[in-house]
Amino acid sequence: MDDNRTPSLLDTSNDSTSPTPRAKAPALDALLGHRFSVLDSGFVRVIDYMGDDAAVVQAARVSYGAGTKRLSEDRGLIRYLMSHRHTTPFEMCEIKLHVRAPMDVWRQWIRHRTANVNEYSTRYSVAIDAIHKTPADHWRMQSQANKQGSTGLFNPEQGARFTTEEQELHLRSTAVYRSRLDAGVAREQARKDLPLSTYTEAYWKIDLHNLLHFLELRMSEHAQVEIRSYAEVIGHVIISKWVPLVWEAFLDYRLGSVTWSAIEVAILRAVIAGDVDSAIRRAREAGLLKANPDGTLSRSRERADLEQKLIGLSLVVPWTASNEKG
Amino acid sequence: MDDNRTPSLLDTSNDSTSPTPRAKAPALDALLGHRFSVLDSGFVRVIDYMGDDAAVVQAARVSYGAGTKRLSEDRGLIRYLMSHRHTTPFEMCEIKLHVRAPMDVWRQWIRHRTANVNEYSTRYSVAIDAIHKTPADHWRMQSQANKQGSTGLFNPEQGARFTTEEQELHLRSTAVYRSRLDAGVAREQARKDLPLSTYTEAYWKIDLHNLLHFLELRMSEHAQVEIRSYAEVIGHVIISKWVPLVWEAFLDYRLGSVTWSAIEVAILRAVIAGDVDSAIRRAREAGLLKANPDGTLSRSRERADLEQKLIGLSLVVPWTASNEKG
Amino acid sequence: MDDNRTPSLLDTSNDSTSPTPRAKAPALDALLGHRFSVLDSGFVRVIDYMGDDAAVVQAARVSYGAGTKRLSEDRGLIRYLMSHRHTTPFEMCEIKLHVRAPMDVWRQWIRHRTANVNEYSTRYSVAIDAIHKTPADHWRMQSQANKQGSTGLFNPEQGARFTTEEQELHLRSTAVYRSRLDAGVAREQARKDLPLSTYTEAYWKIDLHNLLHFLELRMSEHAQVEIRSYAEVIGHVIISKWVPLVWEAFLDYRLGSVTWSAIEVAILRAVIAGDVDSAIRRAREAGLLKANPDGTLSRSRERADLEQKLIGLSLVVPWTASNEKG
Amino acid sequence: MDDNRTPSLLDTSNDSTSPTPRAKAPALDALLGHRFSVLDSGFVRVIDYMGDDAAVVQAARVSYGAGTKRLSEDRGLIRYLMSHRHTTPFEMCEIKLHVRAPMDVWRQWIRHRTANVNEYSTRYSVAIDAIHKTPADHWRMQSQANKQGSTGLFNPEQGARFTTEEQELHLRSTAVYRSRLDAGVAREQARKDLPLSTYTEAYWKIDLHNLLHFLELRMSEHAQVEIRSYAEVIGHVIISKWVPLVWEAFLDYRLGSVTWSAIEVAILRAVIAGDVDSAIRRAREAGLLKANPDGTLSRSRERADLEQKLIGLSLVVPWTASNEKG
Repeated sequence: MDDNRTPSLLDTSNDSTSPTPRAKAPALDALLGHRFSVLDSGFVRVIDYMGDDAAVVQAARVSYGAGTKRLSEDRGLIRYLMSHRHTTPFEMCEIKLHVRAPMDVWRQWIRHRTANVNEYSTRYSVAIDAIHKTPADHWRMQSQANKQGSTGLFNPEQGARFTTEEQELHLRSTAVYRSRLDAGVAREQARKDLPLSTYTEAYWKIDLHNLLHFLELRMSEHAQVEIRSYAEVIGHVIISKWVPLVWEAFLDYRLGSVTWSAIEVAILRAVIAGDVDSAIRRAREAGLLKANPDGTLSRSRERADLEQKLIGLSLVVPWTASNEKG
Repeated sequence: MDDNRTPSLLDTSNDSTSPTPRAKAPALDALLGHRFSVLDSGFVRVIDYMGDDAAVVQAARVSYGAGTKRLSEDRGLIRYLMSHRHTTPFEMCEIKLHVRAPMDVWRQWIRHRTANVNEYSTRYSVAIDAIHKTPADHWRMQSQANKQGSTGLFNPEQGARFTTEEQELHLRSTAVYRSRLDAGVAREQARKDLPLSTYTEAYWKIDLHNLLHFLELRMSEHAQVEIRSYAEVIGHVIISKWVPLVWEAFLDYRLGSVTWSAIEVAILRAVIAGDVDSAIRRAREAGLLKANPDGTLSRSRERADLEQKLIGLSLVVPWTASNEKG
Repeated sequence: MDDNRTPSLLDTSNDSTSPTPRAKAPALDALLGHRFSVLDSGFVRVIDYMGDDAAVVQAARVSYGAGTKRLSEDRGLIRYLMSHRHTTPFEMCEIKLHVRAPMDVWRQWIRHRTANVNEYSTRYSVAIDAIHKTPADHWRMQSQANKQGSTGLFNPEQGARFTTEEQELHLRSTAVYRSRLDAGVAREQARKDLPLSTYTEAYWKIDLHNLLHFLELRMSEHAQVEIRSYAEVIGHVIISKWVPLVWEAFLDYRLGSVTWSAIEVAILRAVIAGDVDSAIRRAREAGLLKANPDGTLSRSRERADLEQKLIGLSLVVPWTASNEKG
Repeated sequence: MDDNRTPSLLDTSNDSTSPTPRAKAPALDALLGHRFSVLDSGFVRVIDYMGDDAAVVQAARVSYGAGTKRLSEDRGLIRYLMSHRHTTPFEMCEIKLHVRAPMDVWRQWIRHRTANVNEYSTRYSVAIDAIHKTPADHWRMQSQANKQGSTGLFNPEQGARFTTEEQELHLRSTAVYRSRLDAGVAREQARKDLPLSTYTEAYWKIDLHNLLHFLELRMSEHAQVEIRSYAEVIGHVIISKWVPLVWEAFLDYRLGSVTWSAIEVAILRAVIAGDVDSAIRRAREAGLLKANPDGTLSRSRERADLEQKLIGLSLVVPWTASNEKG
């Protein structure tokens, strides 16, 4: 080592010869390997991790050089990064999970391309002998408003019929699979008619930035309830213990945040100012107030989204108000 | 535009005001939109593409500056890039396919994370009414040598039994799915027990470098026959038309190539020199010739791989020869 | 092709034998190859592209199945995708640019890892003989408020001094570089002391989703003015022509949008309701109103951000008001 | 937790309540934080890591199911994965480095897009006060054979002249940079004429698979000597300690391996069989033996590559032999 070398601005290690220990998150260490149950036969386990709240701060401070440690405290810096979408410091943390989930859920999960994955192979091994069963009181009705959602539950009597039918189908599928294997059909082919509800397992490793993106999408109310169950365990049970400051910032600036488009801001400003005419005019210009032949407002997702945001601020929707006046 | 500006070394456009047209591959243009059948109900279609053989060359020449056009002709440059794994110029071409494949195949396909994907949603829409059926003469037996492979076919009489059983299972699955939908179960939940053999569709967009990597893995003899059928259509029917020079180089330098490890090269050199003792000694040092208690050689994948390579060069495997001598 | 096959729900091609033509954006076709000047010697040119507004819609509709074409018109669907951050359909478009930029700019540019890149090699070729020169009236002063920003310009007299000094340094650097080359020093080593202001060139290919992310960051007021010049040409001149509906939605929902955190929404709701006490209490609980020893509010980026948003809605900042009252 | 649940095939944790500890690599732990010098003022330090040799095996075994632990020992499995390019298990390990390198080196380094990066910001902070200086005996001559390489050194007298000239340029650049800062020029602009030899620092985090790919390219004889110095420290000093079994397999199957194309294999087979005519005929058919007008063989990179491989096996190049005969 060259003694004359310019000292590194980032290297805060002292000159002692003892190595700098790895970042540790004791609250997560206590959970390592524990299987957190999800659905009837699934689970999530933490296998390993790299970094903690301080590792995010350490990486962020590369961009701030020497001496800035005095100026900001960790929580404020993490909140600033989250709020301003400075995402690279969050990539400096990594976590590795072992998950078991129905293939139907896994098909959604695997769409996140930024993770490292090793999935259980049903070419090499006999499929996991577990199928996701739906209890009688868990059958959901198709939403009419949201073509890709569900709303409300069937009553248990109706549900019991679906559950029995499902059980019979599972038994039948399993019997066919087993009989193929017993007859010597190749595993890679025998599996082809397994139901999507069959469980699979995988190691899944991802950096914290991409994990938060996954959680934002999969903890959302728009996410299907099954994958949301996994996301909520990962978020509330695991990540909250691992990086509590990041988690707090995420809940505030990402999961709980509301974004207003430029047009929506303009209308909001008019509504707050009490200028209903201007608000309605702007909404009309933006195409939000198109009328049906019968004079009622035609359906508009954009207007519906805006109305929800206004109501969220306890504001009166101007075109509803004016309709009432009319 | 600044007239005093240094001319770009890469910009070969003349000074005329007419725009430079996009790269075109006429042989591929003739196939656009055509559905190439795969399996019983699947297909592959080209929707769009960007670039051609010349676009690879164009990008590669960025690294060679002005005037090199004289020095190398396109085919030689492309072969050089392929041989030396200079991969970035191949990323300058892009293709977009529309594919229909069984979910069982798609589960393997989607593991390639470097593509852009929009898959048909069975949350939003009713599942595609097509299931991959296995004909009586297509049932494969489990390989004993290769735990994740198959070897040989069942005779059609046995196969007919599997096919009938499969047909019944498909009818049953479909009936359950339909009855759930008819009763008003949410689509996102009704689908959970569909068999993996159910077809799905997707737009799949990928650059040429990553596509070649996909094809190398999925056209391999180790790939499962179903996904290999898709890879072969994509490769031999589509890519060969789109970028014929790249395709030729790929077949030679990637699909048809053989890699020898440092240890294998050392043993090969000894075998060629006729120095059997040295070859055996090196193999022993590398742990390839461990013996069972009964004196026979213990199973070793590494040795088996090497033996195959030696036989591929019509060479005698030295330890087999020496065994025979003994 | 199997005539009995279930028709694809996505395949809208008719049964004629003529191929489906590629997506075309005529307004962009007219610009292909044209060099749009940026800075003193840089430029951006479109080499090729794939897809258009309709290709985004086409991909999005995969998730909506057959028959939905009647329900939504393209513009509304694109705005919905942008607003709800459904990003994958935007990945179905791709563009390839040829850019020339100073290495100092390129160092920021290349941090976006989701593009395909072939950069001009100064190992293989002599460096491009162009250096980014700063005119006398372009020298910017260090911002005190924003440690990574600039604010205000030097007067041209002061600037002229910097410009002359710069010119001399450029001449000196170039002379050293040339003399090394003339003496036979390897190009890969001779280049090591070139100034960061030296121009480089590259082909840069990226999908529309990732390009919009690049533009959101680099068209921002926080971006350095040099790279912002490139981003603005790419956005306003090129992308606006290529995918006008996407561009309109991007300006509204991304560039011009404002995001309120959960805490900020709670305070905003109180402010709108005229409940100043509640607003202040919530801000205090969130740690936004910490006081200095002298009783003034201590500096807080979070509070400053919130104040800006309130002012943007022409609202009175409650703690300022109460201070005035006190 | 559901007691009736099917046990996980991958979960080898016992039922005790104590958490499973993280994977540890003691030989790497001993080096954590230590600065390994590279070039005159650069270094590499390990900040953190995830996984070890056993973690690769653990991930690979997901694809092999229960009970396979008996069948393969770790070393053999790792070598098999490396040899057959089963890359995903290597992605299950991750390492985070702190590096200091000249920007000229960093420009090459950052082209690897699969890493997470936080680089020192010269917008926010004053540039690191260290420039890579070339000693008098380190000036390399341009290779004539390889346009992007160097070959041989200048004698120290000539080198001393380059070094002095470099020193003067560095002093001048630094003086200009400092005078701008002193005058209040924004840091983001003042830096624009820093030489590429200026040092920068970064945290760099990457998974083991992508790190090996980086090392394969950057430890190669084709890599520029400066970045190669970094790669060799990372490989031989750090990775060899972290994952010794992976490192051994990498040296054998990747760094030290030789790949023969399909055509090359065919020619090799003929050469080994002593069939010179057939070897020459095949080489001619493959376009490797094109003649110049004067009858000599025209330059061909492909032929040169093949000749090198033949010589590496101590074989006679057939067309050279036959020329001699003629």
